[in-house]
Amino acid sequence: MAIIENIQTPEDVRKLTEDEKKILGEEIRNSIIETVSQTGGHLASNLGVVELTIALHSIFNTPEDKIIWDVGHQTYVHKMITGRYNKMETLRKLNGIAGFPKTTESQYDTFNTGHSSTSISAALGMARARDLKKENYYVVAVIGDGALTGGMALEALNDAGSSHTNLIVILNDNEMSIGKNVGGISHFLTRVRTRKLYNKSNRYIKRTVSKIPKIGNGIIRFVRRVKYSIKQLIIPNMLFEDFGFKYLGPVDGHNIEDIEEILKKAKDLEGPILIHVLTKKGKGYEPAELNPDKYHSTSAFEIETGKSKKPKKDDYSKIFGKKMIELAKKDEKIVAITAAMADGTGLGEFAKEFPKRIFDVGIAEQHSLTMAAGMAISGLKPVVSIYSSFYQRGYDQVIHDICMQNLPVVMCVDRAGIVGNDGETHQGMFDMAFFNVVPNITIMAPKDFKELEDMLEFAIYLNKPVVIRYPRGGESNNVSFTIHKKVELGNAEIIQSVISTENQKSVCIIGIGKMVTRAMEVAKILNDNNIDTQVINARFLKPLDENTIKEAIENTDYCITIEDGCEFGGLGTVVKDIIINNSLETNVETFGYPDEYIKHGSVEELEKLYGMNTESIAKNILEKIRKEEICK
Amino acid sequence: MAIIENIQTPEDVRKLTEDEKKILGEEIRNSIIETVSQTGGHLASNLGVVELTIALHSIFNTPEDKIIWDVGHQTYVHKMITGRYNKMETLRKLNGIAGFPKTTESQYDTFNTGHSSTSISAALGMARARDLKKENYYVVAVIGDGALTGGMALEALNDAGSSHTNLIVILNDNEMSIGKNVGGISHFLTRVRTRKLYNKSNRYIKRTVSKIPKIGNGIIRFVRRVKYSIKQLIIPNMLFEDFGFKYLGPVDGHNIEDIEEILKKAKDLEGPILIHVLTKKGKGYEPAELNPDKYHSTSAFEIETGKSKKPKKDDYSKIFGKKMIELAKKDEKIVAITAAMADGTGLGEFAKEFPKRIFDVGIAEQHSLTMAAGMAISGLKPVVSIYSSFYQRGYDQVIHDICMQNLPVVMCVDRAGIVGNDGETHQGMFDMAFFNVVPNITIMAPKDFKELEDMLEFAIYLNKPVVIRYPRGGESNNVSFTIHKKVELGNAEIIQSVISTENQKSVCIIGIGKMVTRAMEVAKILNDNNIDTQVINARFLKPLDENTIKEAIENTDYCITIEDGCEFGGLGTVVKDIIINNSLETNVETFGYPDEYIKHGSVEELEKLYGMNTESIAKNILEKIRKEEICK
Repeated sequence: MAIIENIQTPEDVRKLTEDEKKILGEEIRNSIIETVSQTGGHLASNLGVVELTIALHSIFNTPEDKIIWDVGHQTYVHKMITGRYNKMETLRKLNGIAGFPKTTESQYDTFNTGHSSTSISAALGMARARDLKKENYYVVAVIGDGALTGGMALEALNDAGSSHTNLIVILNDNEMSIGKNVGGISHFLTRVRTRKLYNKSNRYIKRTVSKIPKIGNGIIRFVRRVKYSIKQLIIPNMLFEDFGFKYLGPVDGHNIEDIEEILKKAKDLEGPILIHVLTKKGKGYEPAELNPDKYHSTSAFEIETGKSKKPKKDDYSKIFGKKMIELAKKDEKIVAITAAMADGTGLGEFAKEFPKRIFDVGIAEQHSLTMAAGMAISGLKPVVSIYSSFYQRGYDQVIHDICMQNLPVVMCVDRAGIVGNDGETHQGMFDMAFFNVVPNITIMAPKDFKELEDMLEFAIYLNKPVVIRYPRGGESNNVSFTIHKKVELGNAEIIQSVISTENQKSVCIIGIGKMVTRAMEVAKILNDNNIDTQVINARFLKPLDENTIKEAIENTDYCITIEDGCEFGGLGTVVKDIIINNSLETNVETFGYPDEYIKHGSVEELEKLYGMNTESIAKNILEKIRKEEICK
Repeated sequence: MAIIENIQTPEDVRKLTEDEKKILGEEIRNSIIETVSQTGGHLASNLGVVELTIALHSIFNTPEDKIIWDVGHQTYVHKMITGRYNKMETLRKLNGIAGFPKTTESQYDTFNTGHSSTSISAALGMARARDLKKENYYVVAVIGDGALTGGMALEALNDAGSSHTNLIVILNDNEMSIGKNVGGISHFLTRVRTRKLYNKSNRYIKRTVSKIPKIGNGIIRFVRRVKYSIKQLIIPNMLFEDFGFKYLGPVDGHNIEDIEEILKKAKDLEGPILIHVLTKKGKGYEPAELNPDKYHSTSAFEIETGKSKKPKKDDYSKIFGKKMIELAKKDEKIVAITAAMADGTGLGEFAKEFPKRIFDVGIAEQHSLTMAAGMAISGLKPVVSIYSSFYQRGYDQVIHDICMQNLPVVMCVDRAGIVGNDGETHQGMFDMAFFNVVPNITIMAPKDFKELEDMLEFAIYLNKPVVIRYPRGGESNNVSFTIHKKVELGNAEIIQSVISTENQKSVCIIGIGKMVTRAMEVAKILNDNNIDTQVINARFLKPLDENTIKEAIENTDYCITIEDGCEFGGLGTVVKDIIINNSLETNVETFGYPDEYIKHGSVEELEKLYGMNTESIAKNILEKIRKEEICK
């Protein structure tokens, strides 16, 4: 029987011998490869922390001691040894366990994560709460070197470093964020990693320096300085010590005993401690070791070859990337900016074609947007590409730096709307609503690939701040559009009018972005039920085409809006505004997601669950119309 | 004739002798004290950068060379020597010059600032644009040590440090942000500042080390390490060098010649350079030197005594602070958190009373909110206090860390709504709209001081995420409320019903927060015009009291909403939602600020300008009613 099958809680791990832990590690590694090859998910990062996770749960008395996993996509190992091994096949599936830590799922999940760079802040809060409540336990944040470049993590380091609070930060240094790491901190860490002499010399220096007799205050300070400085010759750990942390490491993150040793040491020290652990993303699965980027977040794949099971189709990100190359060839003022999402947002090829015109700033959304503002004010045409939920991190920069100065920055919002299995932290629910509030901004969403291309070109030459939002994945397979009218500022497009003199009822359906397809599908069902329809592609949420929409509403009995985002604050709300401001007579029904966080599951499952699929919307409208007819 | 009066452009400054520049500095210093004593404004920070600003414009060829002022409240000197000396008396006044840099005001203002920590990002964007366009000029960011603790600045340092881009960052180290600085970086800078040996030894080392012959690659690396390390003995400038910057300084920021010297040096170096300048906030005006916090942003004052001309009245911040002390005395789980705004948000006394239960994390809104989440999940009752426009910096943390986990963090939104003379970067226009989108959140606004107290206590014990927003300044002088009903979740309050059988028309007026007073005043005018009124204090924007509002609308002919924020997305929008969802028959008029950035001016002037004062609102409604009657 495999060891893993006997692990119900970390207590069971603590009872194992070191040799058994090694075997457990291999079992877990194989199990993760097996699971993710079937469910899809985050592979490389989890293979990288197998030994670290076992060591952490061995040395710390979880759940009394608290471990906070930054980002949280690397918690599969943690989940497996905290009672969820048998549920791993439900990972990221509707009603199954989540791909990220969830406090509602287990007492071992101490804080929900999903977005990067939050763990030190949360851990410091917990540690300070512990101290005020005079409780006694360890608080440990585990953060990757990529996440450490996020400004929030640096804010937290700065606060924690001077706090005198007992707090352990594990720096899981794998030289990667989602993409390859960038920036000064990364260079710094490379210097640390490459210092081979470290261990031996460090021991020698410790022995030597500790023998220096302590005489007089000034001398002691001087000796400390010398010690500090000699250490510096061997290992430039100063960055963290400058912040006020005690630094331990680096330690081999794939050797359980070595990690346990250093964790024990850390438990005996006071104040904020940083432990530098070196790991390898994808460790133990060759395709992932060779290509950790690709296996960061993967769909189901064949274990032998590493090849994806699903044939890779075009998606919006890829179309965006291609069009960027086309436009950039013609206009050298166009530059691309992203925040550790170059491949994810489709800029991989652009980076190869124009290495000097792409700026991947690391996990630093705030900086990326204001830097874009700086470029725009200096005459470039910057196009920023970030996922919807991560724009929440750059909201002030959009309001205060880009739009207040009315600067021509194109903000591409990838993964807008429901994203599916990554769940509540990653759903792009709010972007239309929160951008809609911002003055000077133009907001668009394309109905298909071609319209994305047109909108991108339009946006780059509009000379104003523009948002273009588009979903994860590809076009609809069911509807394809043959006509693509020119994109013009604030102009909607009437795609289809089915007006028959025989029908008594008529409905205008206003869709935006991917939901224009849905509008067409709903219209078809309504037409089949002898209801006239007019389908409008809003194109612009802001400025909304008030005239076209007004006219459509005036000419129909019902008005439906469909959008891939939260119901309040977006398309439905602005259409209602038009109705009420113009005293239009209609029955309006807005379709969007309710005021809650949308859990994980496939996009199709979630759409069905929330009544956002074609059948639900059509059924809903048909019932409403029938009900009213009966009432008459 | 004073030298300053002959300065039309920085070119005129460049022509001065060093002695004349010194005199110019003193003239500027006196002029600033004079101006700010009359207009109010940012005093201490401007007195601190007199010499630095003169030196910068002397050595750099502005406006070709670009200076970006972080935060921007320290640009009075800059404005005075770039052609705006004669307009200083209009500073921060309606239609006068702004208290912050504005690209629309002068070609010497290269990038608008107002919020902290943006300058390095903007500068890096400009520098990269310059390089791509093969242009040739210097880009200089001037950032305070306080602003440097903002995560965004650290993100930018990280990116810039590895960029090989020519970029100069001036660290204006005055040991202060708005409040006293905190954090590891601050401690680090203190160590740098106190190293007296610096200058002498540095010169010695440079001479010595540069003589070491360069032989073989390995040796060179070792020599560099030694050099690096010996420097370390003298000055711990490593933080910046770890980030990849070349470090120069520290230099006395009140000696123009010394600064000029170091700036010249920097111009000859390649790559990212950091110059450490030591300044004193309030330099040259004793009350400000002694109490730079108080003179950070001041109202008009008497120069001789430093005393404020306006008698200091109670304001919402102060009431908040007092109530916090009262509640904290009874419940030791209550803690206060702020981001360099302890005094500004009224927590000064709390800090004295409970020094261990207040956490000022520096300019780090993101971290402050997630740290609060960590405290809440560990059983404390954290109350965060931040200005409205700075919550834009912590939006993701509210969505992703606090509300997604439904954690009981009380988020006090100070300076909500129109703030007046600080202008567009500081107006608290958007908070109701952007918070309204967030699931699990409760949003309140008090009509007066007493209701703030009640709401604060209610919020702390609601055990959910709560926002309480209140304006800069105090209660209304015109209306006072004698009755204060108990605050209950989602319950509005009908404050006043004037129903007469004789009147033909009736209006319900729904106000929230400070605009409840306005609603009362408008009602009075309407009553005087023989119109019935019902005044509702919404209290909760979310959950809105749908029943009370519905009933009021059903019982009246007109519905008015008044809010101190942007018109779209807040109270007006949700009331319209109720009207349309319930097919209510009414005439609705929503009063809020339009979809634009609101410039500077006094609160009263701006309210009048935007039709938000009592007279404008009443007039607007009376006209509407009359017009309709005529139409009948």
